[in-house]
Amino acid sequence: MMKLVLIRHGESEWNKLNLFTGWMDADLSERGRMQARRAGQTLKAGDYDFDICYTSFLKRSIHTLNNILDEMDRNWLPVVKTWKLNERHYGELQGLSWNDAIAKYGEETIQNWRRSFDMKPPALAPEDERSAKKAVMYHDVDPTLLPDTESLMETIARVVAFFNESIKPEMEAGKRVLISAHANMLLALRMYFDNLTQEEIPGINIPNAIPLVYEFDDAFHAASHYYLADPETLK
Amino acid sequence: MMKLVLIRHGESEWNKLNLFTGWMDADLSERGRMQARRAGQTLKAGDYDFDICYTSFLKRSIHTLNNILDEMDRNWLPVVKTWKLNERHYGELQGLSWNDAIAKYGEETIQNWRRSFDMKPPALAPEDERSAKKAVMYHDVDPTLLPDTESLMETIARVVAFFNESIKPEMEAGKRVLISAHANMLLALRMYFDNLTQEEIPGINIPNAIPLVYEFDDAFHAASHYYLADPETLK
Repeated sequence: MMKLVLIRHGESEWNKLNLFTGWMDADLSERGRMQARRAGQTLKAGDYDFDICYTSFLKRSIHTLNNILDEMDRNWLPVVKTWKLNERHYGELQGLSWNDAIAKYGEETIQNWRRSFDMKPPALAPEDERSAKKAVMYHDVDPTLLPDTESLMETIARVVAFFNESIKPEMEAGKRVLISAHANMLLALRMYFDNLTQEEIPGINIPNAIPLVYEFDDAFHAASHYYLADPETLK
Repeated sequence: MMKLVLIRHGESEWNKLNLFTGWMDADLSERGRMQARRAGQTLKAGDYDFDICYTSFLKRSIHTLNNILDEMDRNWLPVVKTWKLNERHYGELQGLSWNDAIAKYGEETIQNWRRSFDMKPPALAPEDERSAKKAVMYHDVDPTLLPDTESLMETIARVVAFFNESIKPEMEAGKRVLISAHANMLLALRMYFDNLTQEEIPGINIPNAIPLVYEFDDAFHAASHYYLADPETLK
C-alpha cells in the first residue's frame, strides 16, 4: 500500500478577489498562510512524514509547501519545483474577475470551458504581457512546450505525464511523496487516478490547504482517498 | 569571469543568546528574517540573478534563502539542500553559552578550537541527544560520514569537496550560483578560494546576511571579492 498526499495551496490574494488566476503568480493571503500552517500541523499530528516534495513554479504553492515543511520541522526535505505541476493555463481568462469574464464571454461559455474535457478559453497572444513565453520564470523551458491556454484534457496530459515519469518511480522506490499544487491541476490528477468522467467534474471541489491522501495498491490502482480534516472543516 | 554569491544566514535565535550552534537547528530571529529580506532587496537592486541555489540542511540558512528568493521574485529557482554545507560541527560546545563554555574549558582552549586549523572540541557521544546520528534529518546519510565534532580543516575538506564536485561544474556550465550558509563553513570556503593561512583566520569575520561576491577567472582563481553593502552597514 502506497500513500500519496496532495494539497491545494492556501487562499491566494486573487482567490480573495475572485479573479481567474491560472499561471498568474498571485501570492498567498495571510489567511492562506495560516491555512498552510494548519495543514502542516494536521500532517504532523497525524504522524505523516515525507521523503520528497513536489510543487509548481507558482509562489502560492511554493509558499504553502514552505509553511507546511516549517510546521513539520522538515525544512531540509528535497523539493522539486516544476512548471509541469502549474495550475491549468486559463488563457485570456487570466486576470479577469468572474463578473468581467461573464460580461465578456457569457456564463454558459465560461462554465463549458471550466467543466468540459476539451474546450478552452482563447489563447493568450505571444506578445501579451501575461504570456509565459515572455517570463523570466520559464526562460529555461522550450517555448514550444509552454501553453497559451489549456483544456482540462491538456492539463491532464501534462500533469499525468510528469506524475508517471517522475513521481511514480519515486513512490515505487518507497519514497513518501507530498505534492503542493493547484485546484484544476489536482482535479486533472484525480480524474486520472479515479477514472472520472466529464459528467463527474462539476461535483468535485478541491478545498484550499486540506491534505488529501490517496492510497494505491501494488498495481498502482487508487484504492481509496480521504481528506485529513474533521467533517465540520470540510463543509 | 564567473561570479559566485555567498551569504551567511541572518541572525538566529541562538546568535542572540550567544550560544554555540554548529549543527543545532536554531531558527532565524525576527531581526534575522528582516536581514535576509534586505539582502534579497540588495541583490535585486544590484541586478543580480541566479540559476541555482545551494543551502545546508539547517533552517536558519534555508529560511534566509527563502526570504531572499521571495524578495527577488525567484521562488521557483531550484534549491539544492545538503548537509555537506552545514555549519562546522562544534561537538560538545553545541548548545553551550560562551560563558559556560569558558567556565568549562577555559578561554584559551576555546580560542584554539576556533582559530586553529586542526584542533577541535570534544566529540559528541553517539548517544548524546544532540548527535546527528540520532536525527531524522540525517536518516538517509551514511552515519560513518556524519561528524561528531570538526576541526576547521575537516570542515574545509567536507565543504570544498562538495563545492568542487557539485557547484563548480554548474558554474563552469554558465550557471549563476547563490549559496546560503554559515559563518565557519563560509570561512572554510574563503580559506580555500584565497589560500588563507591559519594566521589570517582571526582577522576574518563573516557578517550575517550581507551578500559576498566572489569573482573567478577562467582558471577558476578567485580574482576578487566584495560585500554588497555600504561601508556604514559593513561596520
